[in-house]
Amino acid sequence: MQGLYLQDKQLHYRSNLASPIPKPHEARVKVHLAGICATDLALIQGYYPFSGILGHEFYGEIEEAPNAPERIGERVVGAINISCGQCPNCQAARPTHCDNREVLGILNHDGAFADYLCLPLANLYRVPESVTAEMAVFTEPLAAALAIVEQTPLRPQDKVLLIGAGRLGQLIALCLKQTPAQVQVVARYPEQQALLSAQSIDWINEQAAQRQRFDIVIEATGNPSGLALALDCVRPRGKIILKSTYKGSPEVDLSRIVVNEISLIGSRCGDFTPALRLLAEGRIDPRPLIRASYPLSQGLAAFAQARQAAAMKVLLTP
Amino acid sequence: MQGLYLQDKQLHYRSNLASPIPKPHEARVKVHLAGICATDLALIQGYYPFSGILGHEFYGEIEEAPNAPERIGERVVGAINISCGQCPNCQAARPTHCDNREVLGILNHDGAFADYLCLPLANLYRVPESVTAEMAVFTEPLAAALAIVEQTPLRPQDKVLLIGAGRLGQLIALCLKQTPAQVQVVARYPEQQALLSAQSIDWINEQAAQRQRFDIVIEATGNPSGLALALDCVRPRGKIILKSTYKGSPEVDLSRIVVNEISLIGSRCGDFTPALRLLAEGRIDPRPLIRASYPLSQGLAAFAQARQAAAMKVLLTP
Repeated sequence: MQGLYLQDKQLHYRSNLASPIPKPHEARVKVHLAGICATDLALIQGYYPFSGILGHEFYGEIEEAPNAPERIGERVVGAINISCGQCPNCQAARPTHCDNREVLGILNHDGAFADYLCLPLANLYRVPESVTAEMAVFTEPLAAALAIVEQTPLRPQDKVLLIGAGRLGQLIALCLKQTPAQVQVVARYPEQQALLSAQSIDWINEQAAQRQRFDIVIEATGNPSGLALALDCVRPRGKIILKSTYKGSPEVDLSRIVVNEISLIGSRCGDFTPALRLLAEGRIDPRPLIRASYPLSQGLAAFAQARQAAAMKVLLTP
Repeated sequence: MQGLYLQDKQLHYRSNLASPIPKPHEARVKVHLAGICATDLALIQGYYPFSGILGHEFYGEIEEAPNAPERIGERVVGAINISCGQCPNCQAARPTHCDNREVLGILNHDGAFADYLCLPLANLYRVPESVTAEMAVFTEPLAAALAIVEQTPLRPQDKVLLIGAGRLGQLIALCLKQTPAQVQVVARYPEQQALLSAQSIDWINEQAAQRQRFDIVIEATGNPSGLALALDCVRPRGKIILKSTYKGSPEVDLSRIVVNEISLIGSRCGDFTPALRLLAEGRIDPRPLIRASYPLSQGLAAFAQARQAAAMKVLLTP
């Protein structure tokens, strides 16, 4: 089969990859659509020492399922953490933090930028009929965005600032709009601003943010300057939610966290079920974020586009 | 009057200071006993650009009170944040985060290492008869230690690690002992270890801590290596409570906070009322932490002793 293979920080298009064979508790999925995420770009830069087929956002169809033939043909999306069920984290109901986990296209498990992938049946969620392929491919990042309001439910009196309006930031903004909180988004680029305006979401620049104080600030730039702005804008005893990973170990004004009694909360993956429901109900429609779609064979060009500043979602079609 | 005056990062003993004059809503307090804290040492190193009489931990007696003559002679301790009552933080019931605050011996307000100090009457708490001067002088740091379990109540099933067993660490350990949680303390120096053992509190070394995972880790060293150890030891979705301030802006592995979904919680001052109650009930006795007591005129020698590694509490008697 064909796929995009990462080796020694270089991404290669390969047409002679072996098709994966599902274990008894797994299914083989024909990938119909896959999305490029900032984590994919970071992996190429060596964020994790991953070697293998890249990609963790996908929509596809179950093609083979040794233990569940009744699921063949099912339209699916997939949770990316593959957990052991035995370690202390699994036993404490934190399977996404499994000590022995594999992560689709990120850690010890070949990913979605290929004709086929394998995942445990338990990871595969049926996509409702009303959710199209172009919507379903956003389920994974949408679930991650929803994790914010799962961890920190927002109240009507909360004044919330979202810093960053890229791929993930736009999805977070759509999630925040589902809450009764007052939300403003720091958006740098005209294209980001236009997308927010089209959804009736308030956007401001950094200076306007700095003149205010917010109960909750969500940092989604992955840039240390985003965290510095968050520390400027959060009120005493407020919360900063860190939603993107950072290169290396940035310098952080820890004393300010102590003196102002700030809570800094890390947030990663989320639950697929509410994400699929909100898509099916039409309450969240991420399709305006799609900028381009490339065949796998032109994957390197797709990555070049995804790497541009203010790039929105770039899709791959095996 | 005499006092220890900080100017240009130099501490001076002065015998010719003007005695402070209380405003109508304030009282003048005769200081009987004062304690040297890590913040005092940091202020001398230029942590904040404070100029004036140092000191914020004290026990004393109200000597003059224009609007409350009935309180003259009262044995008191004092909350250190002087708030305006008008700013958004005061109006939102966060007076310790007042935008216009003064802080005793730390920010725009002369402190306790002197014969006399002035504080608003509302800041002065009556000390119960059963609480001696040597106990009462610990009220401020004890309140700060109790703030941890005020912000994050500890449950019987919580496994808690305290990193740091200095002046503040020992008080935190005494507070943690009041909860049903399972507590271990990383203590480096034999004197710290002996104090903990005498209170039947488990202590371990860094290696033993690193072999375990904790639900809640309290960082009380003020050293970036303490935070690094905390990140090693906290379980996914666990909490790290930052209890001491840091020099500059240390490098922090933020991605680890995101990937492991850690909460980093800053913690500063606490409420005096429960601190005084626990002292009065004899449930917390900080007196074993006292190492020495110096007259104000030998304040510089007192600071030299307080600056030593593993130094415990050094007191000053005006």
